[in-house]
Amino acid sequence: MQTIGVLYNPLVPATAQAGERIAAWLGERGLSVWLGTSQSARDEPELVAPCELLLALGGDGTVLRAARVGITHTMPILGVAMGHLSFMAEVTEESVFEGLEVLLSGGGWYDQRTLVRARVLRQGQEIYNDLALNEVLLSRRDVARVVHVSVAIDDMPLTSYRADGVLVSTATGSTAYALAAGGPVLDPRSDSLLLVTVAGHLTSLPALVLPPATKITWTLARHHPTIISLDGQWSFPIEPDDQIEVTRAEEICRFAHVYPQAHFYQTLTQRLRRQ
Amino acid sequence: MQTIGVLYNPLVPATAQAGERIAAWLGERGLSVWLGTSQSARDEPELVAPCELLLALGGDGTVLRAARVGITHTMPILGVAMGHLSFMAEVTEESVFEGLEVLLSGGGWYDQRTLVRARVLRQGQEIYNDLALNEVLLSRRDVARVVHVSVAIDDMPLTSYRADGVLVSTATGSTAYALAAGGPVLDPRSDSLLLVTVAGHLTSLPALVLPPATKITWTLARHHPTIISLDGQWSFPIEPDDQIEVTRAEEICRFAHVYPQAHFYQTLTQRLRRQ
Amino acid sequence: MQTIGVLYNPLVPATAQAGERIAAWLGERGLSVWLGTSQSARDEPELVAPCELLLALGGDGTVLRAARVGITHTMPILGVAMGHLSFMAEVTEESVFEGLEVLLSGGGWYDQRTLVRARVLRQGQEIYNDLALNEVLLSRRDVARVVHVSVAIDDMPLTSYRADGVLVSTATGSTAYALAAGGPVLDPRSDSLLLVTVAGHLTSLPALVLPPATKITWTLARHHPTIISLDGQWSFPIEPDDQIEVTRAEEICRFAHVYPQAHFYQTLTQRLRRQ
Amino acid sequence: MQTIGVLYNPLVPATAQAGERIAAWLGERGLSVWLGTSQSARDEPELVAPCELLLALGGDGTVLRAARVGITHTMPILGVAMGHLSFMAEVTEESVFEGLEVLLSGGGWYDQRTLVRARVLRQGQEIYNDLALNEVLLSRRDVARVVHVSVAIDDMPLTSYRADGVLVSTATGSTAYALAAGGPVLDPRSDSLLLVTVAGHLTSLPALVLPPATKITWTLARHHPTIISLDGQWSFPIEPDDQIEVTRAEEICRFAHVYPQAHFYQTLTQRLRRQ
Repeated sequence: MQTIGVLYNPLVPATAQAGERIAAWLGERGLSVWLGTSQSARDEPELVAPCELLLALGGDGTVLRAARVGITHTMPILGVAMGHLSFMAEVTEESVFEGLEVLLSGGGWYDQRTLVRARVLRQGQEIYNDLALNEVLLSRRDVARVVHVSVAIDDMPLTSYRADGVLVSTATGSTAYALAAGGPVLDPRSDSLLLVTVAGHLTSLPALVLPPATKITWTLARHHPTIISLDGQWSFPIEPDDQIEVTRAEEICRFAHVYPQAHFYQTLTQRLRRQ
Repeated sequence: MQTIGVLYNPLVPATAQAGERIAAWLGERGLSVWLGTSQSARDEPELVAPCELLLALGGDGTVLRAARVGITHTMPILGVAMGHLSFMAEVTEESVFEGLEVLLSGGGWYDQRTLVRARVLRQGQEIYNDLALNEVLLSRRDVARVVHVSVAIDDMPLTSYRADGVLVSTATGSTAYALAAGGPVLDPRSDSLLLVTVAGHLTSLPALVLPPATKITWTLARHHPTIISLDGQWSFPIEPDDQIEVTRAEEICRFAHVYPQAHFYQTLTQRLRRQ
Repeated sequence: MQTIGVLYNPLVPATAQAGERIAAWLGERGLSVWLGTSQSARDEPELVAPCELLLALGGDGTVLRAARVGITHTMPILGVAMGHLSFMAEVTEESVFEGLEVLLSGGGWYDQRTLVRARVLRQGQEIYNDLALNEVLLSRRDVARVVHVSVAIDDMPLTSYRADGVLVSTATGSTAYALAAGGPVLDPRSDSLLLVTVAGHLTSLPALVLPPATKITWTLARHHPTIISLDGQWSFPIEPDDQIEVTRAEEICRFAHVYPQAHFYQTLTQRLRRQ
Repeated sequence: MQTIGVLYNPLVPATAQAGERIAAWLGERGLSVWLGTSQSARDEPELVAPCELLLALGGDGTVLRAARVGITHTMPILGVAMGHLSFMAEVTEESVFEGLEVLLSGGGWYDQRTLVRARVLRQGQEIYNDLALNEVLLSRRDVARVVHVSVAIDDMPLTSYRADGVLVSTATGSTAYALAAGGPVLDPRSDSLLLVTVAGHLTSLPALVLPPATKITWTLARHHPTIISLDGQWSFPIEPDDQIEVTRAEEICRFAHVYPQAHFYQTLTQRLRRQ
């Protein structure tokens, strides 16, 4: 590796400081470093493009924003937790240098994470199209408490219900919001799609684990102000007759790993207990 | 009984029409009738005051608004379902006359529903104070996905977690939003308070059934735009250091019943299946 | 207090040793001590009868067996945890002397726990009648996986389903098996009854919190080898046309407390995380 | 197709009668028919071997027993529901002839269902080895209420807990007992393994969706009488130091289908509501 990107969270000064320290450490080892925020990565894509690895310093939000950059430039992400344990971080601020040494010496490994794509069709025209690493969520826009949604699987009506929301999650997202909503945890290697209802009213639909080629379609059975949100970061308002289609994306996202595969299960229960 | 109120939903014309029919039927029997909306009930309290019974024509929202009127004037509510089965309605549009005959002839019975009171304290000053029949919900105000809340029971810290929200429900509310959030169903006669977390992240706190004299306090462990909402109808924005206290209210709400007590359990599973 | 009972678990030598130490400590303070097992308490009731307090040394099973002795002789129980935290123990082996000093000097307090009574009727005759502190469970007797049960509330049919089992729990039992089955936690002071289905198949019945005066009746809709078990300690085989009635018992059980009421909620989340 | 097997349930006379009718119908069309029970299929394997399709008349138990025959002889199964809707039946008693006509004329399609294999190792020796179509369940053998089990994923310790049981289910089994225990529904085409805890005590482990190549190992952290059961039909007692290994089987089971793939989701919610 010759060039490494380091992405920090502009709202958390400690991540910028950690970024400086890591950049210095990498510079001492003769590597070129790009240091910036997700905003600057969008503003100066030609500077980010040469990076062969992108460190994301901060919480899950920072990793999710880094993933966007990584997808665009097809570079792997190394999540660096700055606080408590996170499902998205491979190393912590303390173990980052150890981890970098492994990767720089050709060790470690890279996985491929499934992404989902959400499209919104309005009167037959696609008016929105974007990717998510964790999940696409359809939910109420404000305190009016319910979404009344109809769900179809591969154009076949499944059911309709009132709920706080409904989401399609990737395996990566199965430890995020989908878990809070009652879903199972999918192995990170899985390319299945996970459909989970959030606080469904008088519905007994369990979480569904769907094949990668499935198309999930949502339409509003009755309209209240509604939005879709992707990875809890980006959102788009939905109108009464819109059709929201969620599928597996052709793109993937790669994560860099220092620890063996089994590390996920070894640390799962600790993370579940927030320890 | 000499005077009866009939409250309809101004947004649903069918409820106004049903109101006219019911008013005519009551008039033929020599009764005085007040016919109006919850807004007009607030505008002309002296006209509503003489009512000895208040019919609520419509969905749960209409019954919740009627309950407010009923609490103010200490008159019982008769819920009249205009569409599908509801936990809050005693009779349907079809069976309303039968039900009224029972009540007018001195039959039927009246229960007492527990209410909750929510108070918001800002810098030691009470800045909000209101009643709910179903529940008080603390939740995110917009798509930023979590509330990070600390919960105390009788001033004793219980736990803190990230979640979509947290609510205190009455027995009446236990078949409403609290049920969608995973809570148990409380017998309508119960005066217990029910604490339920909505889509809690990495928390294993089950629903808690608390004694009527309990004070539940919420404070924000970390701030995102947050509101409390009462019965899903009325809401109030919460600031970072606010303290939200929820207790059982001194007031109660009375519901008129035509069917015996056991009717609740007899119809419970039908209602749970939305049949 | 002049006489104190100390009950240990004959299968756990450490509890007998702890019993000796506690008996010696009490003897030094001039108190009479009865030291024995639940079996010896049944064999020599006249020796146990004078006890004004009964210490239960061991796990939840020991406290449950002590409760039986305590109910018979109307004496309060002090649970002494010998291993990890328990919902039924007030003190640990380390804090037991401190706790006893509080109680012997007239401090502390005593609560009243609701009990449930299970009766089995066969051809109209009562053939079984016993008490439980935690719960009455109807379940399959062996690996044949389901019980097909009909449930009635106050003689009104509620629903029927296939499940691993169905239970009625007290508030005390709400932190035991009922919790594992998905029920809420009831405040220890509550006299409500809690109906919870265990691994119900294709049923959406939530946990029900019922008034103390409720009678719950179970009958087998279809017969497989089935038993009822009380507190997981005592069991009775059920025949095809038996009727199992569960009600709140007239008897109560008293627990001695050293810490204030709020201690329950203060330690709840620790206990939920098995810490 | 020239030879067809018809398997009925000897305990349900109606299935034998339906078997006779179907055999007659097939005979009229010039096909050879083997008609028998799962016992007779085991007793006279040479008679069953020529069958190119095996009809299973009855409930899920009959389909599970037919699957065993089908796996041995690598022939597909057609489930024929004799009562209410089942997840395992493709046709009903009413629609069976229509379905057969489709299949006999070369229509319909055949899927491949993942199976799981359970092995029990005692002192390093394999003492049990068998297949399941739905699930392998480790559970208490009698009313002693808990199994205290340690779970490992690919030889990496995951967690240990007390529970009624723990199971590994296939996609096929995800609509059976795993669903009652709180698991998600997996698409029938999925080859993932599903790990679900049954009534876990003080554990927050969600259901896990594991890759097909995963090995799940169970050992008893503390011994109570314990068994494993396969498909709720066959069981084996477990001793204290036994090691139970569950993996995906090399064998598969084929199901015959008359309706398109989408039929599964189309009927899912009906079946979930037991309609």
